[in-house]
Amino acid sequence: MRAVDIINKKKYGNALTTDEIRFIVDGYTKGEIPDYQMSALCMAIYFQSMDSREIADLTMAMVKSGDEVDLSAINGIKVDKHSTGGVGDKISLIVIPLVASVGIPVAKMSGRGLGHTGGTVDKLESISGFKIELTPNAFIENVNRYKMAIVGQSGNLTPADKKIYALRDVTGTIDSIPLIASSIMSKKIASGADAIVLDVKVGSGAFMKELKDARALAETMVAIGKSLDRKTVAVITNMDQPLGHEIGNANEVTEAIAVLSGRGDADERHVALTIASHMCVLGGAFREVSDAYKHLETVIASGEALQFLKTFIRIQGGDETIVDDPAKLPAATKHIEVKADIEGYITGLDAEKIGLAAMLLGAGRKTKEDPIDYAAGITLSKKIGDYVNFGDVLCLLHTNVDDVLEAEKQIRSAYRFSTQQPEALQYVIDIIS
Amino acid sequence: MRAVDIINKKKYGNALTTDEIRFIVDGYTKGEIPDYQMSALCMAIYFQSMDSREIADLTMAMVKSGDEVDLSAINGIKVDKHSTGGVGDKISLIVIPLVASVGIPVAKMSGRGLGHTGGTVDKLESISGFKIELTPNAFIENVNRYKMAIVGQSGNLTPADKKIYALRDVTGTIDSIPLIASSIMSKKIASGADAIVLDVKVGSGAFMKELKDARALAETMVAIGKSLDRKTVAVITNMDQPLGHEIGNANEVTEAIAVLSGRGDADERHVALTIASHMCVLGGAFREVSDAYKHLETVIASGEALQFLKTFIRIQGGDETIVDDPAKLPAATKHIEVKADIEGYITGLDAEKIGLAAMLLGAGRKTKEDPIDYAAGITLSKKIGDYVNFGDVLCLLHTNVDDVLEAEKQIRSAYRFSTQQPEALQYVIDIIS
Repeated sequence: MRAVDIINKKKYGNALTTDEIRFIVDGYTKGEIPDYQMSALCMAIYFQSMDSREIADLTMAMVKSGDEVDLSAINGIKVDKHSTGGVGDKISLIVIPLVASVGIPVAKMSGRGLGHTGGTVDKLESISGFKIELTPNAFIENVNRYKMAIVGQSGNLTPADKKIYALRDVTGTIDSIPLIASSIMSKKIASGADAIVLDVKVGSGAFMKELKDARALAETMVAIGKSLDRKTVAVITNMDQPLGHEIGNANEVTEAIAVLSGRGDADERHVALTIASHMCVLGGAFREVSDAYKHLETVIASGEALQFLKTFIRIQGGDETIVDDPAKLPAATKHIEVKADIEGYITGLDAEKIGLAAMLLGAGRKTKEDPIDYAAGITLSKKIGDYVNFGDVLCLLHTNVDDVLEAEKQIRSAYRFSTQQPEALQYVIDIIS
Repeated sequence: MRAVDIINKKKYGNALTTDEIRFIVDGYTKGEIPDYQMSALCMAIYFQSMDSREIADLTMAMVKSGDEVDLSAINGIKVDKHSTGGVGDKISLIVIPLVASVGIPVAKMSGRGLGHTGGTVDKLESISGFKIELTPNAFIENVNRYKMAIVGQSGNLTPADKKIYALRDVTGTIDSIPLIASSIMSKKIASGADAIVLDVKVGSGAFMKELKDARALAETMVAIGKSLDRKTVAVITNMDQPLGHEIGNANEVTEAIAVLSGRGDADERHVALTIASHMCVLGGAFREVSDAYKHLETVIASGEALQFLKTFIRIQGGDETIVDDPAKLPAATKHIEVKADIEGYITGLDAEKIGLAAMLLGAGRKTKEDPIDYAAGITLSKKIGDYVNFGDVLCLLHTNVDDVLEAEKQIRSAYRFSTQQPEALQYVIDIIS
């Protein structure tokens, strides 16, 4: 078998065999197939795509390229959740206690992210004492006992995916649906998930700007799950503006607490409850999503959700008293108001620009080595659909940096105004299963 | 400027600017842009193609990547000729003396080839004493005085093309018309040609199997010539079977002598005269191709063509007496007849298989280091359209190797027979100018 023949085969639009896909992925992981052949193949895949069988084969070849997490010691159906990424996305913080509360094991493995804010792990680490370094035994024991635990990614999971992703990043082959879908699904499967709920974001602040692309990605991932015997549901959600009102790390924890205590942003609550409900159904606790949804609303109303959050924080070594007193979370030294210099309805609030501003304020990382300022972030006072008068506060910047000019510029350019009230945004756009 | 942005730009079907193309070619030649980005870009070009301006820019960027031959000391319009390659292609040996005979300077620069037989240089070196290592001054002096000289490629011509071609070879990006066309034209332009006649082969033994692809390549190269102020004509010629009856090195010289003496294969003579006539017109010696053609026929009939061939061989240090006595050329120790085991009309004679057989007999090189046996080759006694009886000699193998089984097998599988007489092949298929 020669890599160049496989490249040509795909280039001419033919499906690769299971053996050919394994040959390429294994050879590339071991360094026997050079970068220049892999990048040419990725570009050929961009143009010629792959069928469902090829994508499932690619996913499994990446899973088999490294370690696989063994969660068989955990009782019940392990349901994982993945978001394709957005700004203000604190859904994981909300759904972990909710799903655990109905007795479904949530064994969450999470990486630190590059980007506008930290990943789920970074957000949780803004809580004093919170640790994500658990031994495999402690992790499994916590899940069996408390139905929830989070651990930092360890071991050599999907090394093929890591190497291919790094190559795609510099060769213009990121935006290929078979490659994105297999990358995401390989990580979830290697992490030991039995069932997966995917939060596929669409809009100005998401990787997928167009609904048709988001839908194609969602359908492709659901098909992979079906092929590989993992029940998979994709929820397509809106990212035309940041989710909720808080962007950052500590302040996203605060907003998650608000949602779990029955307050908080209604749209964010709806997205979180929808995703958690699908997890409950895949986990076997409910037959109907609507029943799960209604039940989770009572879990919030009764205060049980907040109790589960406290337990979650405590068993990971964190200070659970921040749940009742979020003021104990890290706070910034500076709070700067950005005020409207125009009147009208807000018709646009570009999430990417808001995210970039948050990073400039210290909330995110540009490179792996960058520190994160847990206290930094943005509180959006006004969002799409709100009417603002001249001088109204649009948002509040929390930061410890001196120069906020560029961040403010990004924020001002993120807002769009009109005399016409825009239509209300739909937050849960579609369910693909 | 970032390579990844340029890759994405081409991937999305946009034209690259002159600066972007130069940035890529220069960066890649210097090793600043890695193979994996160049191969991804080549694959994007395969799918999205390039417009005429981009292809001309790519050609010039490759020309400028290395040395350019200065032929300004040669009087007259320097007309070069290039063949896209086939089996039994000895056209250069025939046209050099013909074109020189009308006073047009033929300053030929030629490389050794990999493949079925040697390149033009290897074929000429089968003549005792023939040298292709001339000093630049001796080369130019010979062209000015005798209107012809050949020299081995020296200097650092089009290093970008060499590097990109080697990469394309292993990344499935050979068959891209913009990349093939710019590769060929960059070498011709860097070699100092004022005008170029391209022999674009089409058929089973050519790189281009389909006429539409050959025509597209021809049109693209002619457009490059036009953009870069080099008069360019492409002649599309047939390679459904080997050209002429001789394949090898010494025996191709013998067949070239036959054509120049008025004997030899009529189809080969027609292709050679057509190409030489176009060279005469581009060189300014004739206004009409048909006039040049008629004149060159008289050059052959009068014996002048043969005199020019003798002069050419003599001034390069070779033994000109081989022209009158080709038996002085290297001869093989074994001559093996391949006889028909069937009766009927020959309807197919796969040139690639015949070429492979010639290489197995010793006539060609697989790797740069392989030696060439000048005496080895094949004489085709029967070609497409001939009727053969059982036991008729199809061809004669000339070789010094012991085992000819595989060569014979290739040859037998190259011939196709039928009870129906096939239509006569057309040898000059089209002229693109």
